[in-house]
Amino acid sequence: MALRGREIQLAARPQGEPRDTDFRLAEVDVPEPGQDQVLIRNAWMSVDPYMRGRMNDVPSYVPPFALDAPLEGGAVGVVIASNADGVDVGDWVLHNFGWRDYTIADASAVRVVDVALAPAQAYLGVLGMPGLTAYVGLLDIAGLREGDVVFVSGAAGAVGSLAGQIAKQRGHRVIGSAGSPEKVAHVTGELGFDAAFDYHGGDVAALLRDAAPEGIDVYFDNVGGEHLEAAIASLRQNGRVALCGAISQYNAAEPPCAPRNLGQAIGKRLTLRGFIVSDHGHRMRDFAREVGAWLREGRIHHRETVVDGLERSPAAFIGLLRGENTGKMLVKLGEG
Amino acid sequence: MALRGREIQLAARPQGEPRDTDFRLAEVDVPEPGQDQVLIRNAWMSVDPYMRGRMNDVPSYVPPFALDAPLEGGAVGVVIASNADGVDVGDWVLHNFGWRDYTIADASAVRVVDVALAPAQAYLGVLGMPGLTAYVGLLDIAGLREGDVVFVSGAAGAVGSLAGQIAKQRGHRVIGSAGSPEKVAHVTGELGFDAAFDYHGGDVAALLRDAAPEGIDVYFDNVGGEHLEAAIASLRQNGRVALCGAISQYNAAEPPCAPRNLGQAIGKRLTLRGFIVSDHGHRMRDFAREVGAWLREGRIHHRETVVDGLERSPAAFIGLLRGENTGKMLVKLGEG
Repeated sequence: MALRGREIQLAARPQGEPRDTDFRLAEVDVPEPGQDQVLIRNAWMSVDPYMRGRMNDVPSYVPPFALDAPLEGGAVGVVIASNADGVDVGDWVLHNFGWRDYTIADASAVRVVDVALAPAQAYLGVLGMPGLTAYVGLLDIAGLREGDVVFVSGAAGAVGSLAGQIAKQRGHRVIGSAGSPEKVAHVTGELGFDAAFDYHGGDVAALLRDAAPEGIDVYFDNVGGEHLEAAIASLRQNGRVALCGAISQYNAAEPPCAPRNLGQAIGKRLTLRGFIVSDHGHRMRDFAREVGAWLREGRIHHRETVVDGLERSPAAFIGLLRGENTGKMLVKLGEG
Repeated sequence: MALRGREIQLAARPQGEPRDTDFRLAEVDVPEPGQDQVLIRNAWMSVDPYMRGRMNDVPSYVPPFALDAPLEGGAVGVVIASNADGVDVGDWVLHNFGWRDYTIADASAVRVVDVALAPAQAYLGVLGMPGLTAYVGLLDIAGLREGDVVFVSGAAGAVGSLAGQIAKQRGHRVIGSAGSPEKVAHVTGELGFDAAFDYHGGDVAALLRDAAPEGIDVYFDNVGGEHLEAAIASLRQNGRVALCGAISQYNAAEPPCAPRNLGQAIGKRLTLRGFIVSDHGHRMRDFAREVGAWLREGRIHHRETVVDGLERSPAAFIGLLRGENTGKMLVKLGEG
């Protein structure tokens, strides 16, 4: 008898904020793994802001999700059957077939991870794609250099919390923005940022100016819109912006009227640069060495917000876009 | 008896578009040149879009013009008295004390130019600051590379016309925008651009898409606002923008609601970089060698729009901001 498993399908393309009815929980037959394939029981899956863009039917850097097909995304699981050399039953693997209980995958599309070194779900967060995003954005895209004052938006999120901590470990003054007083306390407390503000507390430009009266040199942008405009106003000469995300706009039906002050980039000699982490896989080794060491030494902190059960993954995703998470938003599947 | 000369003073800070009454023609005593100084009779002066910013009382990369004091800007003239070694009576010199008939200047603040090689006023245009701006913006800021499709706004202006021609000389496909059918004909005719459009003729994004259906790789921005938004929409992956000017905004009382699509810079991995030519003086020698050679060979064309008489320099400046010029806007002073 065939193995049965559940998956989350895209039932409708969201208009604005996604709703439960845009998703469908389906039970399907799980195919047998073919030659050079493995069968995986997923234990954890990731929900990430970039997934919102893939739910629209517009050309982007990754193709849109198909309707009535399972969603995709980062996940870790354990191999329960293998027809592939080098990946054995019992191995923990990282792959991109989340949003489902079970999956088959080509062995070339999975990466075996060491769960003795770190819990499996860390490979979806601090040691995974969000971590590498923070590292590459700060060092390679923004070109962090000595003495830079750094501003990070979404500072309590998976990427922002790490970007700020990497800058702190390298000796920089770091300012963060986050979406609640509790998050702000977390950012300036456990995460060790020098200053932070709740962006709901007023005009972002004024809040940033108060937190960094002498200005900033680097802005790590996870939010876009008003935050980006505020950063441009506070950036000093030769300032740099790593354009990483624009979560403020992902659900927007109309594009934002911002930044209205990009003309300042001329006189200030600013550089704004967009990037996608998948172009930067060659930096994974450097990232794992440097950030992994800080993590083992307890110098880097990371939180997880865990939602339990595949059936609740749409709610986890919707909550992520609302900023309900602190640190990495994860969904725990099956036995974990 | 002291030498008397005329100068244009800033009488009031313009609100929106400058008016005649914002300027004042004054007659003043011209001081004697001191030690290591020269006395210059100006022959040509430049009006440039960046001067509009200096008329506002806001901090910028250059200090604002002072009220009731003479304006400043590029000019060439002939030395009529000298107390400095190395600069002789009869020498033609380039300097920054335009908007007046006569000036004294430190010898260190003037550059002797060779009027046998090119007419004096060329050092205010194709062989001067606008030329170097085009060269640096295209090569160093946008990082022009083989196969790039290039879009230049303000393509009939002093900087844009040269930026496009440099790209053409280097073998690129070049698209331009300009402000009238006559300018468009000039851009695709004499200047040799592959395509051009009149930006008054419709939605800039649609006009650009029609002119470059496969997209663009480099945008040389002299205009800002709607043009920049259109370019972002048409830029391909790894595209680059040299932010050189934003003439559409210089007279604006309210900042523009654009670009609204900067979020696309993430997925497209775009880089937008502002620059000021005065940071790039070290490239003058390369520029003069490369572009100077093309000019001598007749491969580069440049037009001038000449307004006669110091008293008409405010009108020349106002006309420049309205786009009344084709090529470099110049004011001819005295005997020239």
